[in-house]
Amino acid sequence: MFSIEMGVRDYELDMQGIVNNGVYFNYLEHARHEFLLNSGIDFAVLTEAGIHLVVIRSELDYKASLKSGDKFRVEVALERISRVKFGFRQRVVRIEDEKVCVAGLVIGAALNERGRPYISPELEALFSA
Amino acid sequence: MFSIEMGVRDYELDMQGIVNNGVYFNYLEHARHEFLLNSGIDFAVLTEAGIHLVVIRSELDYKASLKSGDKFRVEVALERISRVKFGFRQRVVRIEDEKVCVAGLVIGAALNERGRPYISPELEALFSA
Amino acid sequence: MFSIEMGVRDYELDMQGIVNNGVYFNYLEHARHEFLLNSGIDFAVLTEAGIHLVVIRSELDYKASLKSGDKFRVEVALERISRVKFGFRQRVVRIEDEKVCVAGLVIGAALNERGRPYISPELEALFSA
Amino acid sequence: MFSIEMGVRDYELDMQGIVNNGVYFNYLEHARHEFLLNSGIDFAVLTEAGIHLVVIRSELDYKASLKSGDKFRVEVALERISRVKFGFRQRVVRIEDEKVCVAGLVIGAALNERGRPYISPELEALFSA
Repeated sequence: MFSIEMGVRDYELDMQGIVNNGVYFNYLEHARHEFLLNSGIDFAVLTEAGIHLVVIRSELDYKASLKSGDKFRVEVALERISRVKFGFRQRVVRIEDEKVCVAGLVIGAALNERGRPYISPELEALFSA
Repeated sequence: MFSIEMGVRDYELDMQGIVNNGVYFNYLEHARHEFLLNSGIDFAVLTEAGIHLVVIRSELDYKASLKSGDKFRVEVALERISRVKFGFRQRVVRIEDEKVCVAGLVIGAALNERGRPYISPELEALFSA
Repeated sequence: MFSIEMGVRDYELDMQGIVNNGVYFNYLEHARHEFLLNSGIDFAVLTEAGIHLVVIRSELDYKASLKSGDKFRVEVALERISRVKFGFRQRVVRIEDEKVCVAGLVIGAALNERGRPYISPELEALFSA
Repeated sequence: MFSIEMGVRDYELDMQGIVNNGVYFNYLEHARHEFLLNSGIDFAVLTEAGIHLVVIRSELDYKASLKSGDKFRVEVALERISRVKFGFRQRVVRIEDEKVCVAGLVIGAALNERGRPYISPELEALFSA
């Protein structure tokens, strides 16, 4: 499965001394973009071309908290939800003890410049892979 | 229903020119804290007292995007999920046209200093209200 | 002097329980954009038109920290530094006790699509005002 | 000189498609904390012990912008400014072409629980090194 390794940065901690909930969303997004890049799909290039990949739903379970100094990996697995919707199964796993901190599903869609669903050939190829 | 009004700040926009997905989490959290404060529960005071309110699950539907200059309100309604879990039904609604941009459920729990579920008297009173 | 009122949001606090240094930069930027908007200059519209307002230097003194619940105002005063550079004198002032928390100078420039300095008529008018 | 390598994450970009100014502050802070950790000083441990390292002044020149996909290193060099103030000379350098994107000085101080300047033995040792 595709995954990237990351480390907690202290500015991501909140007053509880743990990674703020909203930050996991950033981690998950970064891992999705790296996953896509790894598959030859550059989010920034798509954006400039007028193709907007957008998140339409997220379901996340927060099971444990990351703290200062923690290393973790963010996993990404792609699944097709419908003709125009795709799902990313994602997990944030603390490396020290393999504890799953966050697990969930992020569902996205691709929209063209007129805001209509549009699966580009690169995205289509990704699903066929 | 409890709600607060907010405005998009340009640093919250991403390269697509829309509010980044992770930022909605910040909006929702801020509204929850204001809701609690409005009910006499100060998140920062609880944290210092060793009571940690944590999010354990979130389910969010992203229906429309906020852009530069948009004003919106964030709604919060509390419901009890179980003895130790509570749910916040939340919506982000663009004020100009009453468009619901984000809607979902954020489920939280309260933990004491040993990480055990703990519903303080103030929280218990909140549910009885 | 132009100023806007804002309140600390808990997700902006770091593990020290105070607003993280980087967040003041967000506050200052938001106030500059509101200042410009108030003068008829829309940052987002300029960006779409290919005019990029960029920060080229900042000098900030951090004198006191904001905490959960603090209200503050961010002041903005414009001064011309050179033909193509403009300075924003800015302060973050806690409202409760008029304590200056951050004070400094943020110097910007306007670049056209080729990355060359460009003072648009609206910006020129702003300096003449 | 101490430095760490980092990569731009797409959520750090603003509507101009470049890393938002405030984010550089995050990069610089992260590099300072890694520098301290590398010298045996753990920011999180100090914070829990009631010693607060705080930034009191920053002077930053923004010379070039980072974009999606850019790799960069953040350099840190420590110098003593006075008995209780220390300065971090920092640069953000794009790796592809060795372009200096941000350069500046961040001045800090250490405060004890009563908010008084306090240079702990570890910090003193760091300056003597």
